[in-house]
Amino acid sequence: MSATNNAQYSPSLAEFANLDFERSERCGWPEVVFGQGKTPEQIAAILTTLSERNEVVLCTRASAEAAAAVQAVLPQANYVSACHLLFVDRRSAELRLSGQSTAEILKAGRGQGQVLVCCAGTTDLPVAEEAALTAALMGSRVQLLADIGIAGLHRSLAHLTELRAARVIVAVAGMEGALPSLLAGLVEVPVVAVPTSVGYGANFGGLAALLGMLNSCANGVSVVNIDNGFGAGVIAHRINQPAWAD
Amino acid sequence: MSATNNAQYSPSLAEFANLDFERSERCGWPEVVFGQGKTPEQIAAILTTLSERNEVVLCTRASAEAAAAVQAVLPQANYVSACHLLFVDRRSAELRLSGQSTAEILKAGRGQGQVLVCCAGTTDLPVAEEAALTAALMGSRVQLLADIGIAGLHRSLAHLTELRAARVIVAVAGMEGALPSLLAGLVEVPVVAVPTSVGYGANFGGLAALLGMLNSCANGVSVVNIDNGFGAGVIAHRINQPAWAD
Amino acid sequence: MSATNNAQYSPSLAEFANLDFERSERCGWPEVVFGQGKTPEQIAAILTTLSERNEVVLCTRASAEAAAAVQAVLPQANYVSACHLLFVDRRSAELRLSGQSTAEILKAGRGQGQVLVCCAGTTDLPVAEEAALTAALMGSRVQLLADIGIAGLHRSLAHLTELRAARVIVAVAGMEGALPSLLAGLVEVPVVAVPTSVGYGANFGGLAALLGMLNSCANGVSVVNIDNGFGAGVIAHRINQPAWAD
Amino acid sequence: MSATNNAQYSPSLAEFANLDFERSERCGWPEVVFGQGKTPEQIAAILTTLSERNEVVLCTRASAEAAAAVQAVLPQANYVSACHLLFVDRRSAELRLSGQSTAEILKAGRGQGQVLVCCAGTTDLPVAEEAALTAALMGSRVQLLADIGIAGLHRSLAHLTELRAARVIVAVAGMEGALPSLLAGLVEVPVVAVPTSVGYGANFGGLAALLGMLNSCANGVSVVNIDNGFGAGVIAHRINQPAWAD
Amino acid sequence: MSATNNAQYSPSLAEFANLDFERSERCGWPEVVFGQGKTPEQIAAILTTLSERNEVVLCTRASAEAAAAVQAVLPQANYVSACHLLFVDRRSAELRLSGQSTAEILKAGRGQGQVLVCCAGTTDLPVAEEAALTAALMGSRVQLLADIGIAGLHRSLAHLTELRAARVIVAVAGMEGALPSLLAGLVEVPVVAVPTSVGYGANFGGLAALLGMLNSCANGVSVVNIDNGFGAGVIAHRINQPAWAD
Amino acid sequence: MSATNNAQYSPSLAEFANLDFERSERCGWPEVVFGQGKTPEQIAAILTTLSERNEVVLCTRASAEAAAAVQAVLPQANYVSACHLLFVDRRSAELRLSGQSTAEILKAGRGQGQVLVCCAGTTDLPVAEEAALTAALMGSRVQLLADIGIAGLHRSLAHLTELRAARVIVAVAGMEGALPSLLAGLVEVPVVAVPTSVGYGANFGGLAALLGMLNSCANGVSVVNIDNGFGAGVIAHRINQPAWAD
Amino acid sequence: MSATNNAQYSPSLAEFANLDFERSERCGWPEVVFGQGKTPEQIAAILTTLSERNEVVLCTRASAEAAAAVQAVLPQANYVSACHLLFVDRRSAELRLSGQSTAEILKAGRGQGQVLVCCAGTTDLPVAEEAALTAALMGSRVQLLADIGIAGLHRSLAHLTELRAARVIVAVAGMEGALPSLLAGLVEVPVVAVPTSVGYGANFGGLAALLGMLNSCANGVSVVNIDNGFGAGVIAHRINQPAWAD
Amino acid sequence: MSATNNAQYSPSLAEFANLDFERSERCGWPEVVFGQGKTPEQIAAILTTLSERNEVVLCTRASAEAAAAVQAVLPQANYVSACHLLFVDRRSAELRLSGQSTAEILKAGRGQGQVLVCCAGTTDLPVAEEAALTAALMGSRVQLLADIGIAGLHRSLAHLTELRAARVIVAVAGMEGALPSLLAGLVEVPVVAVPTSVGYGANFGGLAALLGMLNSCANGVSVVNIDNGFGAGVIAHRINQPAWAD
Repeated sequence: MSATNNAQYSPSLAEFANLDFERSERCGWPEVVFGQGKTPEQIAAILTTLSERNEVVLCTRASAEAAAAVQAVLPQANYVSACHLLFVDRRSAELRLSGQSTAEILKAGRGQGQVLVCCAGTTDLPVAEEAALTAALMGSRVQLLADIGIAGLHRSLAHLTELRAARVIVAVAGMEGALPSLLAGLVEVPVVAVPTSVGYGANFGGLAALLGMLNSCANGVSVVNIDNGFGAGVIAHRINQPAWAD
Repeated sequence: MSATNNAQYSPSLAEFANLDFERSERCGWPEVVFGQGKTPEQIAAILTTLSERNEVVLCTRASAEAAAAVQAVLPQANYVSACHLLFVDRRSAELRLSGQSTAEILKAGRGQGQVLVCCAGTTDLPVAEEAALTAALMGSRVQLLADIGIAGLHRSLAHLTELRAARVIVAVAGMEGALPSLLAGLVEVPVVAVPTSVGYGANFGGLAALLGMLNSCANGVSVVNIDNGFGAGVIAHRINQPAWAD
Repeated sequence: MSATNNAQYSPSLAEFANLDFERSERCGWPEVVFGQGKTPEQIAAILTTLSERNEVVLCTRASAEAAAAVQAVLPQANYVSACHLLFVDRRSAELRLSGQSTAEILKAGRGQGQVLVCCAGTTDLPVAEEAALTAALMGSRVQLLADIGIAGLHRSLAHLTELRAARVIVAVAGMEGALPSLLAGLVEVPVVAVPTSVGYGANFGGLAALLGMLNSCANGVSVVNIDNGFGAGVIAHRINQPAWAD
Repeated sequence: MSATNNAQYSPSLAEFANLDFERSERCGWPEVVFGQGKTPEQIAAILTTLSERNEVVLCTRASAEAAAAVQAVLPQANYVSACHLLFVDRRSAELRLSGQSTAEILKAGRGQGQVLVCCAGTTDLPVAEEAALTAALMGSRVQLLADIGIAGLHRSLAHLTELRAARVIVAVAGMEGALPSLLAGLVEVPVVAVPTSVGYGANFGGLAALLGMLNSCANGVSVVNIDNGFGAGVIAHRINQPAWAD
Repeated sequence: MSATNNAQYSPSLAEFANLDFERSERCGWPEVVFGQGKTPEQIAAILTTLSERNEVVLCTRASAEAAAAVQAVLPQANYVSACHLLFVDRRSAELRLSGQSTAEILKAGRGQGQVLVCCAGTTDLPVAEEAALTAALMGSRVQLLADIGIAGLHRSLAHLTELRAARVIVAVAGMEGALPSLLAGLVEVPVVAVPTSVGYGANFGGLAALLGMLNSCANGVSVVNIDNGFGAGVIAHRINQPAWAD
Repeated sequence: MSATNNAQYSPSLAEFANLDFERSERCGWPEVVFGQGKTPEQIAAILTTLSERNEVVLCTRASAEAAAAVQAVLPQANYVSACHLLFVDRRSAELRLSGQSTAEILKAGRGQGQVLVCCAGTTDLPVAEEAALTAALMGSRVQLLADIGIAGLHRSLAHLTELRAARVIVAVAGMEGALPSLLAGLVEVPVVAVPTSVGYGANFGGLAALLGMLNSCANGVSVVNIDNGFGAGVIAHRINQPAWAD
Repeated sequence: MSATNNAQYSPSLAEFANLDFERSERCGWPEVVFGQGKTPEQIAAILTTLSERNEVVLCTRASAEAAAAVQAVLPQANYVSACHLLFVDRRSAELRLSGQSTAEILKAGRGQGQVLVCCAGTTDLPVAEEAALTAALMGSRVQLLADIGIAGLHRSLAHLTELRAARVIVAVAGMEGALPSLLAGLVEVPVVAVPTSVGYGANFGGLAALLGMLNSCANGVSVVNIDNGFGAGVIAHRINQPAWAD
Repeated sequence: MSATNNAQYSPSLAEFANLDFERSERCGWPEVVFGQGKTPEQIAAILTTLSERNEVVLCTRASAEAAAAVQAVLPQANYVSACHLLFVDRRSAELRLSGQSTAEILKAGRGQGQVLVCCAGTTDLPVAEEAALTAALMGSRVQLLADIGIAGLHRSLAHLTELRAARVIVAVAGMEGALPSLLAGLVEVPVVAVPTSVGYGANFGGLAALLGMLNSCANGVSVVNIDNGFGAGVIAHRINQPAWAD
């Protein structure tokens, strides 16, 4: 992107955004853009400016329109429509091809440690993909297991090896949200629970799963907001660190 | 109880109660008294009158004071303080000794079919006992399994034989209330779920468990009110019938 | 369906679904697909795979688009649009004709026992149909009574014979949800209550009916999730069993 | 009460109360004191001042301590502990004897028209008594029917004559609160519904009954606050007027 | 409407509706159809059948499509789109012209007594019109006052004469719902409060107004469901009766 | 606007509105129209009538359609689409050009005192603009700072001079709504907090931010309704007065 | 208080508190202690340390036990039990006498400007006193009007002179919380609304009043937490400033 | 403890508990007893049995009575009353002395890594202590910082060195719960947020803090149940592991 292109956005940027350029030093990762509620023009302007100073920039909840607006000025931007993630990653040539599926991107990843993302049902998959991609982009090695909910217990138990090999587990579930309790009873590592708004009636938009997870009878479960796959991915990556060497 | 004793209660009974003497013919069981919020005197008057027309009468949520007031006029009344059930059963000499534990009463039972009552934790036990005793008094054979919650999966799986032998299962759980989902994924029979108010914080007095059970991803789960062991016992007994013989 | 057709779906199936092929042995019925939130392609792939191993497969909350996608690969699939049920039943030639009404399918049924499904008002009918069809597909004989709510008491009382002949009653109601209490006061069998989201204002999407049913003053009522006709049908069928013969 | 007694209260009265002496002209009845949350001294001071200007004064939710404090300065004050009503009525000698039961006071009443107060269960009785006494004190003829809830339908139907003779019905119920719907389906007159906090679990302090009544499928039901027997009594009396003569 | 027309609907009517033809004798008014959630065809079938036995039939929450379907078979049906009321009134020639405004219909009314319907703001008007038309159709004389909310006190006080001349007042308000409290402090007659879903943010779909009205500090206020103008109109008409003549 | 134009609206105005022409004397500002839920025709009629008597009239939550309807009869009306404010200001020529941005209007302002409006993120900006424009139109000098939320603390601290120069601060934030607490800990002046509905999941339409602000641990924070930028602007202007001179 | 006394507390102070000694410079007033949930010993230690550096220190929600513990080491501490405020004020000899009533303290005040605190009923008085005393201690002149709720309109209107003379009004109300709307419709100054938990049933601990106030249809109302008289007093004082002199 | 003592408990243990002796192998730590809702006798029996197989056993929410009952049979049990933790630790002589404060136990700890527990106010301290002690008993080195809430920003900023040295931070806060957002904006490590029920009014028992934390605008925050210090301690310890060495 040329300086000219950028110039056409900068005049108004100060009126609606106040970018936190030091976020990367302070928190280890540049500011991430929450795409919902912003216009495609605002998103394009913000990502353009951020990408001048960072090797990787990320926008969550991006609509297809926002993705198009960004790709018009940042052609290398990658959009995974299944989970509405939009990102520019100048570190890696492999990721530059828009349209790749989450499974392909995870396979191409060269991250460290081991994050395991599980979801209870097929309808929870977009949230699980958001978590998996976020952690992978931040530098974690990530594996994704779909559709291993509590109603078919043997489906979870069949993955005991993967479950116990992980440094941290992200458990995504709607309805009664019992998956995190089940998994936390089987492992020693932290479980990050993500309630989804999947379900109907007295699910109340994910409230049932949220309350279920907060009240888990198993130890080692903490919870993020409903449908917040991104947040879970960040936490999983932060846990999945070499840390102190004893 | 003598007519004299009864006489001293009858004058005011009409002012506060309007007994449904035909309940037994209509619904197969005499009216059951909900003890909470009634005075010991009211309970004694109501039970006295009911016991004149029925072989067995039952009062739930009875306080120790209510039990004492009733035993003063109906010495054969039996009170199980652990779950606040008070009953008079003229059909059976074995049950006449107040102070027996639920376990002893269940062992002495000569009911039919098979109701299995399970609870997730020790603190859910009073509600489970209320369910078990209710179904047993109504004529079901009942078994009670305590403390087989989801956090220790092998504890549930160890009872697969009992689970599959039952005609109906009552699953009592607080916190996230996941036990019914777990059990319903293992059996073909109906599971009656009872949320309890056990837990703290965002449990909100049993709301978390209630919503979890209503949103169960497993088929075959229906739910009663929070802490309503009595209601679950009635339903389990009604399901546990010889029914139509094909 | 030819192996070729199936092949075109199978590559991606593992990425979004993890089918529970043993559900039938464990729980007496193959896994049922919850159609809401899944794409027509996902539903077609899942049903195709399931129907290779089972004589009958069922998908709830199926959109017309999903039905069309399935019928393109499984022409014998039957879609009842009134209650969004989509199923393939290779056991019976009668059901193969898509477009039949619930009334016609129930009449053609050759199930056992007696499940009675009642609804309070005309607007509750789709949920009641979902319950009735589910139980019928699973093998129960089912009768459906519409519009017998509490505001016109004689309408319920006119059906006392049917009410007392049933092995189990499913009572579907919105607004204040009083129908289950009314019916449970008239019979000895279990009543499965289904709150619907019918109503306005402080109905709060079915919450009023749900709370009303959970707090029923009548014995023998258990409750499923709001608008969950399918769940009620499963439970009713499980109750409606020959069971133990005394 | 002597001027001297009154004098000892008046100095501070202006600091905590600002009595509405014109309420009687404007609304047909003097200001009624809400006793909950006020000290016995405040209640005594307020009632003393009010009773100087009105023939009848009323305090709801009065504790026994408040009653004693009032009777110390206003010996003719009458306290009905069952529903915590405290009143001074200089119009009638019959009511001056504290300790009378609600039934006796209603029998002694010489009011006009016909208000029928019904309650679903014995535990709803205190709220029903508050409604009945309030309307009676204001000048209505009142009849009270206890324990005619929906679970025993014949108990309601047995009172069809009284129900149809009333100018207005007050229906008091806890749990699912279905009584008003039942009664409103049987009569032509307005039904004032009073939810009570009787019940447990998902009753949520009367919320279940409140929502049930607001969503009544029967026409002609309006609702007052949970446990607000007083409010229902006032409305019933206002409806029970000779009004316009056609 | 010819018998032929009717015939084409009757075959299926029994499948989705169970009309309460005795409602008129029991409750003084034929069954009213709740139009929301019913198809135009269902509404047309139901109204056609009802209108064969009653001089006046009423359908609330009717869409323009439903109105067209009904007018195709019942040309004399009248539709007031502002409040979605659809009715057939064979008693009166004046009302046969569809498209009349509420104001014109009220002016043409020849009812008895005096019902006063007030609303707080312009956006509450559709609910107020539903109440006013309902009471007028049932036979009450009705006056409607718009936009007299509490923020401009003099607007209410300017109508003191009308307020005090009414036999019953219907007070419709959204936002904080204070209008009923204000009016009930000025009059002796019952006030029927109708919360509306007008407002934003923490209004929560009318919950704020509903709770405000239930907690009114003024005596003589009872409440109906959010936006339930029809219900308020019925109650107002039932209160507005000649009643007993002393 | 000619009298003729006005005339075509006035006939029906009395049927749906009851304008409070004395509001300006009583409360210092003419009645403001809440545009949501009113038709374009109603809004045009009301603004036309109000603008005959006042130099400035304001309509909030105006749709583009309403703006067009008003500009057809009041061509000098100004519409700021970003925050849906529509106003006519005859005091100032600068504001007459529709389409100006909030930033331009604030720069053109010649108000007094100092109101500082801050928002936490870009998506909160429309609500902040509504607050800023409202206060500016009423006569306050207003500065607007965007995107200074708590996650990048230095962004707030960089504005300490502006924060301490203000007479009153309006703090607009969604999500957890922590901005007001942060700012109130840094200044001596009142902070008016505005929760927004920005966020997802357990944000529950702004409830999370609303509760957070009501429970602020910092002193000096009061709260308005969710998304109620207009209300905050009014209060800020009322606080920002010369007041009493000591 | 001697250094010795202070010494006995200081060792542990660092373990449970971290006093903000710069609060006074930053926010114009020293840190205020929230007494609820702290032990008397903790409160005594904190107040002792704070009073060494400040002329006036304040503790809200102090129990009588906490007051006694503080007065043992700080004999000049003043406790107003009616609203649980505990304070030490070394600026003024008049306030040193514990046991004075709020009315006496307000009369002795020599503050500036004019804060008017109003409450709707006698039971709201403690919250109103907390607000009034807080503002008075901070340096405002304060007047307190009790019991002027909306049900007796003339009681509010009688105080129009005081209402219009105030620089800011604090309106305290429970039940439906309509007082702030009423007052804000009569004045030009900001109204700080304080919902109280006074009421019963569907008041839900002050939620009804809180929602009512947040949804006020009158302009110029902002709201603090339920029963938070202290917070309202702080805001009122901050508004009641000489500010900028034009 | 002698075998004899133990024997007197074992007979009934099977009736109320079903201990999960393999928890230690599966999840790295023996089953922890939730003391609330269990009788002192049940707790003593469970702890006695658990301590026969494990070097360290832990009971949360233990009452003083439970502690006494346990110490009667297990004299080496340690009870920290400030946070109701009861534990037996045979690994370390230092911890055997009951009555030690949390500060002393943390100082005596010889754990690994670095867990930092922070709380916003003094009243949040018991929950913070529960978290700190739990992590320390499990083997983490733990530091505890009290009273660094957001209202005094410099108090947090003064601890930047400790904040950045931690492997994981536990942030405990009531009221609006903003502390986790503040801290997560300053560090790269995961923040475990614990809402507390501290506060009043619209805090709704910790709901405000819970929602605030779930909606944190900062990345890297996950949440546990209200007041669940124990759960946070477990998660913090699980994160604070040497893990994979790159």
